[in-house]
Amino acid sequence: MNILFIGDLIGRAGRKVVSALLDSIKYEYGIDLVIANGENSAGGFGINEKIYKELRNKGIDIITTGNHIWDKKETANQLDEMEYLIRPANYPEGVPGAGFITVTVGDMEITVINLMGRVFMPLSDCPFRVFDEIYDKVSKTVVLVDFHAEATSEKNAFGLYVDGRAAAVIGTHTHVQTNDDRLLPKGTFYISDVGMCGALDSVIGMEKNAPINRFLTGIPSKFEVEKKGKMVFNAVVFYIDKDTKKVRDFKKIFKVIEG
Amino acid sequence: MNILFIGDLIGRAGRKVVSALLDSIKYEYGIDLVIANGENSAGGFGINEKIYKELRNKGIDIITTGNHIWDKKETANQLDEMEYLIRPANYPEGVPGAGFITVTVGDMEITVINLMGRVFMPLSDCPFRVFDEIYDKVSKTVVLVDFHAEATSEKNAFGLYVDGRAAAVIGTHTHVQTNDDRLLPKGTFYISDVGMCGALDSVIGMEKNAPINRFLTGIPSKFEVEKKGKMVFNAVVFYIDKDTKKVRDFKKIFKVIEG
Amino acid sequence: MNILFIGDLIGRAGRKVVSALLDSIKYEYGIDLVIANGENSAGGFGINEKIYKELRNKGIDIITTGNHIWDKKETANQLDEMEYLIRPANYPEGVPGAGFITVTVGDMEITVINLMGRVFMPLSDCPFRVFDEIYDKVSKTVVLVDFHAEATSEKNAFGLYVDGRAAAVIGTHTHVQTNDDRLLPKGTFYISDVGMCGALDSVIGMEKNAPINRFLTGIPSKFEVEKKGKMVFNAVVFYIDKDTKKVRDFKKIFKVIEG
Amino acid sequence: MNILFIGDLIGRAGRKVVSALLDSIKYEYGIDLVIANGENSAGGFGINEKIYKELRNKGIDIITTGNHIWDKKETANQLDEMEYLIRPANYPEGVPGAGFITVTVGDMEITVINLMGRVFMPLSDCPFRVFDEIYDKVSKTVVLVDFHAEATSEKNAFGLYVDGRAAAVIGTHTHVQTNDDRLLPKGTFYISDVGMCGALDSVIGMEKNAPINRFLTGIPSKFEVEKKGKMVFNAVVFYIDKDTKKVRDFKKIFKVIEG
Ligand SMILES: [Fe+2]
Ligand SMILES: [Fe+2]
Ligand SMILES: [Fe+2]
Ligand SMILES: [Fe+2]
Ligand SMILES: [Fe+2]
Ligand SMILES: [Fe+2]
Ligand SMILES: [Fe+2]
Ligand SMILES: [Fe+2]
Repeated sequence: MNILFIGDLIGRAGRKVVSALLDSIKYEYGIDLVIANGENSAGGFGINEKIYKELRNKGIDIITTGNHIWDKKETANQLDEMEYLIRPANYPEGVPGAGFITVTVGDMEITVINLMGRVFMPLSDCPFRVFDEIYDKVSKTVVLVDFHAEATSEKNAFGLYVDGRAAAVIGTHTHVQTNDDRLLPKGTFYISDVGMCGALDSVIGMEKNAPINRFLTGIPSKFEVEKKGKMVFNAVVFYIDKDTKKVRDFKKIFKVIEG
Repeated sequence: MNILFIGDLIGRAGRKVVSALLDSIKYEYGIDLVIANGENSAGGFGINEKIYKELRNKGIDIITTGNHIWDKKETANQLDEMEYLIRPANYPEGVPGAGFITVTVGDMEITVINLMGRVFMPLSDCPFRVFDEIYDKVSKTVVLVDFHAEATSEKNAFGLYVDGRAAAVIGTHTHVQTNDDRLLPKGTFYISDVGMCGALDSVIGMEKNAPINRFLTGIPSKFEVEKKGKMVFNAVVFYIDKDTKKVRDFKKIFKVIEG
Repeated sequence: MNILFIGDLIGRAGRKVVSALLDSIKYEYGIDLVIANGENSAGGFGINEKIYKELRNKGIDIITTGNHIWDKKETANQLDEMEYLIRPANYPEGVPGAGFITVTVGDMEITVINLMGRVFMPLSDCPFRVFDEIYDKVSKTVVLVDFHAEATSEKNAFGLYVDGRAAAVIGTHTHVQTNDDRLLPKGTFYISDVGMCGALDSVIGMEKNAPINRFLTGIPSKFEVEKKGKMVFNAVVFYIDKDTKKVRDFKKIFKVIEG
Repeated sequence: MNILFIGDLIGRAGRKVVSALLDSIKYEYGIDLVIANGENSAGGFGINEKIYKELRNKGIDIITTGNHIWDKKETANQLDEMEYLIRPANYPEGVPGAGFITVTVGDMEITVINLMGRVFMPLSDCPFRVFDEIYDKVSKTVVLVDFHAEATSEKNAFGLYVDGRAAAVIGTHTHVQTNDDRLLPKGTFYISDVGMCGALDSVIGMEKNAPINRFLTGIPSKFEVEKKGKMVFNAVVFYIDKDTKKVRDFKKIFKVIEG
């Protein structure tokens, strides 16, 4: 069972690079399931039904999100039409949408859990404890976690906390791929951040001048997705062993194409 | 001219892995200058004269730091004895210590500037503008920057802001090596974070149970450097062309040894 | 039933001003129950059994706390000896200590709940929902809340959220008394912050030079309780009507004595 | 010389309460100069030329602002038409607008400086040092400071830092009036926060349900100015002695009218 996890898709640029590369990567690695973080897929901020369907049509099976999930006003009302989209499970009780999803791929049951860190992030419930609660229900399936967080300390701590329980913990949110992909001591596949799909020479996917100006002046301005220049496709591919339900092989993908 | 930049050394574990690997790496790559971030080199928090001398004796030429520079009470009074140690240059005027240093290596003048980000970090002056001021004075030398910061947006923005002026921008502070090492459009060598030297299966170098417990309970407790298990040596090596004063070749190092 | 709620006691200065004024204030207002926030009562940081007993001997019946509750290492192990001390109830499950206490005063049952905000504060569970859970258990008693929080938006929102359920919401943590004491539309007595007991011309109770220097330089240093100069006693006194179980009269106290 | 300083005006509600009360308050106290913080005067977020003129027509002489100054896109281009509006002086060099203004009232020269704190606030330059620089230029005039900040520690520290130099330091930003108005040891009139003009039973001026819901769910939504219910007018009035150029008398105003 080969799984491809793609980092935060940044607006049109992110969708374009997926169009350009996904089919060939799926073919090359014999991918059985594609997961991608879509929290920035609509204009860099949020996601809606239209973009969701576009992503599904491109070959993405499950879409995770993060703190930007509610950026588009229409999203909350469209959740019923987005069956394979999940949002951080540690939003409080009563918040619409699902925080995890279990799918059957071949003869394997796979659960994808979306969680959000709390350090330097919006308010949410404890992701460690919410993992425990969900894990109790799905521990017989293969458990994959998109841990959407800022601080490396929280990401490291979460990985080690669920080590041996989750098959994989894939970090998202910083939009920069880390080089620490490995198996943790009890076998969980871990990477602090898988990175993004979008313009390479940008400020985490955005055209550079607006954010640079903001750092220089403190004056807010509209950030636009960078659509020119080199484009990066960031992902990890990993193989899950049928018998152990654990990751056996894994590989980071950092592919650059001309924009 | 080959330069080795080593990520944050985490206490005894970081110093040990440097002892084990530095000489052979210097030999292997023909290193002419060794820079390392030492803000966590004394018990995980700060640095002092004793540790500084130990690091210099191990073969580190220049020591940069960051937000942890003042963790040990004695540091401020020992600055005169630590000639090759710099602290973030964007601490306000009047703060002791130097924020950059120019050294002559062979026939090349090299300036190392230490700067600190402001997003999710302690208060400091604007690192973008402080770079401009220092650059005016040292623009004829080869300029290397240790940009010690948390947010990838600020790191990306800073790299693009100084692109073509600094020969290299090496990020530190997150203790996790990123996979985005590259030459920016105008030739600056850039990596968001070079990573650390310390225990691999840890919480950014610290024994995992105390930080995990803190995330679970909110109760603070003493964090200890993890001294057992696999140890990682994180660095980048890059070659500076004599004529262009720019980086021509570069390579991340992520070496693991048994603890 | 007259209740006196005293703001954060700042170390020796705070204890001293309580010694000087509490007895006469109790007499003047015919106080039946004294509550005080003690999170800074031991040297400005935390509380322990020794200080707890001193405060109880001075005539304080119930001691609430906040984010500084764990500053002294011994506190967690001494909780059994501090029967009338509570800590924020929205610390996660499993954390030692009680988050609320019900006492009988005359023929009235009074519950004091301690909660902590989350905006600009350490990680904790949602104080709004934790209030709901506790309120379900104690709604037949008179419910008083020490809402220990930084942001006025969160304090305002909490007050209006529990309006009509809690008899009183008294804010703490900023150490500055606010002038917005009033009855909310459904009858809850509310003040954003009751203030502190400690040195008036200080930085929230601390000697001014260390914090000013920190703002100027970014260099951390030890903060000491200010023990000289004018001392302020900040509190609110309110009368609870036996029949309605609501607050009928209330009054802020801002008394200054020579140090 | 009697000066009236009015706290943050919250949208239409704030303007309405000013219309209702300003003339009579000016008359009652014999006010010579009216200053108000207008950062929330346009729909709760920002200010523009239209609202500026409305406020001037109502009798406000000088308008200070804060972190919300740039919320309306048109503001930066309209600064030339808003001669008596200032923005925080510690925005970096090159940012449009003025950070202080000197006016002549009767035979007194009065400088109003606007500064913004940095704790829990957007990035800006050090307000302590920027005060020093401006003070050097205007020390012969009567210096008043609107210190727009969140943390009471930073407000206390700033007040004591400029004590004896500024005639008055009036805090803004939290929208809740504090009860600590007093003369500091060297004579500066100080209040941590003057409060706001807007709906009393609101979340710092906003209709309560949207912010309460956000605290409960983490889902962002549009905040609207509360326009119903009781309205509060928060201000301070102080008298400046001609000879000493210091504040001699002062008084908080907390006036409530039916909405
Ligand atoms: Fe993202
Ligand atoms: Fe995100
Ligand atoms: Fe570090
Ligand atoms: Fe650091
Ligand atoms: Fe306190
Ligand atoms: Fe506190
Ligand atoms: Fe405001
Ligand atoms: Fe503000």
